[in-house]
Amino acid sequence: MDHDIRRRVAAEFFGTFWLTFGGCGAAVLSAAFPDLGIGFLGVSLAFGLTVLGMAYAVGHISGGHFNPAVTLGLWTAGRCADRHVLPYLVAQVVGSVAAAGALYLVASGKAGWVLAGFASNGYGALSPGRYGLVACLTTEVLTTFFFLTIIIGATSRGAAAGFAGIPIGFALVLIHLISIPVTNTSVNPARSTGVALFAGSEYVAQLWLFWLAPIAGAMAAGLLARWLYRESRILDTVVVEKRAA
Amino acid sequence: MDHDIRRRVAAEFFGTFWLTFGGCGAAVLSAAFPDLGIGFLGVSLAFGLTVLGMAYAVGHISGGHFNPAVTLGLWTAGRCADRHVLPYLVAQVVGSVAAAGALYLVASGKAGWVLAGFASNGYGALSPGRYGLVACLTTEVLTTFFFLTIIIGATSRGAAAGFAGIPIGFALVLIHLISIPVTNTSVNPARSTGVALFAGSEYVAQLWLFWLAPIAGAMAAGLLARWLYRESRILDTVVVEKRAA
Amino acid sequence: MDHDIRRRVAAEFFGTFWLTFGGCGAAVLSAAFPDLGIGFLGVSLAFGLTVLGMAYAVGHISGGHFNPAVTLGLWTAGRCADRHVLPYLVAQVVGSVAAAGALYLVASGKAGWVLAGFASNGYGALSPGRYGLVACLTTEVLTTFFFLTIIIGATSRGAAAGFAGIPIGFALVLIHLISIPVTNTSVNPARSTGVALFAGSEYVAQLWLFWLAPIAGAMAAGLLARWLYRESRILDTVVVEKRAA
Amino acid sequence: MDHDIRRRVAAEFFGTFWLTFGGCGAAVLSAAFPDLGIGFLGVSLAFGLTVLGMAYAVGHISGGHFNPAVTLGLWTAGRCADRHVLPYLVAQVVGSVAAAGALYLVASGKAGWVLAGFASNGYGALSPGRYGLVACLTTEVLTTFFFLTIIIGATSRGAAAGFAGIPIGFALVLIHLISIPVTNTSVNPARSTGVALFAGSEYVAQLWLFWLAPIAGAMAAGLLARWLYRESRILDTVVVEKRAA
Repeated sequence: MDHDIRRRVAAEFFGTFWLTFGGCGAAVLSAAFPDLGIGFLGVSLAFGLTVLGMAYAVGHISGGHFNPAVTLGLWTAGRCADRHVLPYLVAQVVGSVAAAGALYLVASGKAGWVLAGFASNGYGALSPGRYGLVACLTTEVLTTFFFLTIIIGATSRGAAAGFAGIPIGFALVLIHLISIPVTNTSVNPARSTGVALFAGSEYVAQLWLFWLAPIAGAMAAGLLARWLYRESRILDTVVVEKRAA
Repeated sequence: MDHDIRRRVAAEFFGTFWLTFGGCGAAVLSAAFPDLGIGFLGVSLAFGLTVLGMAYAVGHISGGHFNPAVTLGLWTAGRCADRHVLPYLVAQVVGSVAAAGALYLVASGKAGWVLAGFASNGYGALSPGRYGLVACLTTEVLTTFFFLTIIIGATSRGAAAGFAGIPIGFALVLIHLISIPVTNTSVNPARSTGVALFAGSEYVAQLWLFWLAPIAGAMAAGLLARWLYRESRILDTVVVEKRAA
Repeated sequence: MDHDIRRRVAAEFFGTFWLTFGGCGAAVLSAAFPDLGIGFLGVSLAFGLTVLGMAYAVGHISGGHFNPAVTLGLWTAGRCADRHVLPYLVAQVVGSVAAAGALYLVASGKAGWVLAGFASNGYGALSPGRYGLVACLTTEVLTTFFFLTIIIGATSRGAAAGFAGIPIGFALVLIHLISIPVTNTSVNPARSTGVALFAGSEYVAQLWLFWLAPIAGAMAAGLLARWLYRESRILDTVVVEKRAA
Repeated sequence: MDHDIRRRVAAEFFGTFWLTFGGCGAAVLSAAFPDLGIGFLGVSLAFGLTVLGMAYAVGHISGGHFNPAVTLGLWTAGRCADRHVLPYLVAQVVGSVAAAGALYLVASGKAGWVLAGFASNGYGALSPGRYGLVACLTTEVLTTFFFLTIIIGATSRGAAAGFAGIPIGFALVLIHLISIPVTNTSVNPARSTGVALFAGSEYVAQLWLFWLAPIAGAMAAGLLARWLYRESRILDTVVVEKRAA
């Protein structure tokens, strides 16, 4: 690994760590605090703000994916070099698992704490609102499709430079505002995997959906983007790729 | 249809789909979730963030209207080409209806779900707070008037370039913070139409108000803008129009 | 009145109308809606977003004051021309009174509505949390002092251009998050005056505080700014002033 | 002290005053207001918005630290001149203590007010959710580590210029969304010190943790930054330092 790829991998590791620690941490620690808890609204904000923050912090190093579906959607759109895909995915999953471990350490530091779902994603009996498989699949495909459409569009040449972290972060806030009751909101296989490993085997058994659906939605958006943004050449990513050459 | 107009229509379709799916989805799925629901505040945020996100994603393609009142207000102000008006309106309404269908699919995936108003707009007996016709009409006219004043002002030459999506998105947040109790907040005939078709005939019968009032307010703002911003020539839209030529 | 001053006055009129209609409207209509109401948090956001939106919409026309304390604080700092002070103040008060009238029309469109305080400011018995005069005076002076420090700093030469509307709007959100329980948050004599005229004579009798304290805090910040920002020459306002010349 | 350092010290004093007055003020005055209170979500927003506002207001004067851990983390990263460290730390602590005093004056202006924790930080019996020492230490180290990573990354050369105040302010919002239940969220020794002096000796006795943990996390981030951002030379701070030379 040359120096550049190590910095990229570090950026993706820390970014995804923060996403899982921050978003799931808000859910596990603060959502249902008696009387003053932050509810689904606060959790939604937390997830989005992890991405908004890290996009500005390390986006100029790795592109700021923090999410296997984002990496594969951008790759489909022609915005991510082949050789980066696997290292990014590994860094994201490892970062998320590490964050779930750190969160477990913190959360269990309260006497009488109960693990419950540990902010995991689920469908059917494990959906917060008991939504069925079709509803959950549809929701994850659709929301990840739009998430990637916004990510690719906001970083394409025609878009206002420098702003992308704001619409992207707030798109993740919005997606959580819609779908926490449905699947507890994934759109990110790494985030789902990290906490499921601690939450128990019934959550692990449902992980397939939270890899399949987000990646399907993301790759569909990547294909659309090839046509929709074809006159607006890639911006941020090109810069990053060139530096890597 | 040349290539450019097809991309514009696609942008308006997807943008309005996201507006209705995201905003009404948050309302239908998350607003009243037991204990942790997002309430009117979360729904307000959701609507605004759909526009903030899509403005940065596809604003450089279509101008980012996602709303017949916005299209007609901008047209009144001299900011939208005649030949774009009808295709935009059709794309917006079709996008919103499709989104309402997708939302219906998701929402009905919960055992025992009740349709209720399906986040539709209404006055009198169908107003969330039972506000009368005059109050509802006044609210929709006024809030759409200011929405367009902000849209046109923030994209005019004197304004800081690139920022417009932020004040515009947050203006829609604000408008919902004010008027969900009154009309459930429309300011957008396409959003109203999409969900009303699923909500039932009593909501369809009130749709006239949510076409009339937002468009009246928007066109009034367009007229004001011709004077107020007359020295600040059009910016974003001009660029888009030129590329279309 | 030449053309320029008429556009400035219109900008201040509409901006302050929106501030009072939006902020007080959220408070009167949505804050305490059963179960789903937006609370003080939503009201705080509403007030700030009125300013964020209008700052980007008409800030390049009038400077975007929408508040007599802001006008006088900027004037103290040497950022507002003498001849603009009086027209701005008149436009702001008239805009706020008109907005309060429009809000009254909407709010009274609900059967059984009770006027209560109509989102007015007050101290002692009229303070939401029954805070005494000294606490209320201190709060209004201090928060307006920091509001102006942020306004002047964020628009001074050293600051990042174009961003000012964001920290300024969110500073007003923050100020409401702090002080709604104390005075119902003024920092703006025009906003206080508009609703007090409808709320009744006991609120009018306390208006002196909501002129005196915000203006005192604002002018103190203007004096500090002459030293603190003295090497960072005025930016936005200079541009506006030059165009007016 | 030359003129420049006096303006820097003033900027840090006022910035930290606003951070403590605003953030702790929202917590003490508004968080638990009956029925309409802002909860942990509103308090989180308040803390972050103090920094967002002051970063744009005085960031171009002092760099906008408002926090001894930030100063020491930036110093570790090579972004803060040696001769500024001590004056900054003194200004921050004095500003925070003054703010706590002003807040005490306001809060005690309500009949029957009870001091309680006065928004102080604590672990074990003084943790809002009764989290143990290890959980509290881990949380403060980790969140400050990521806070500094975002601060340094968002102000490094590769990052979009001018935006830094937004991800930094919202990172502080996020950190509060995660950790108010754990330690009441410090990540800032000055903020902890200011209110602890008024809250009582049991809080003062725990202050060591809220100096040690944030500074440890911040300095670790400073070391990481020397490698992670090594090709992206310092931006904002360099400008400020040069002007000081």
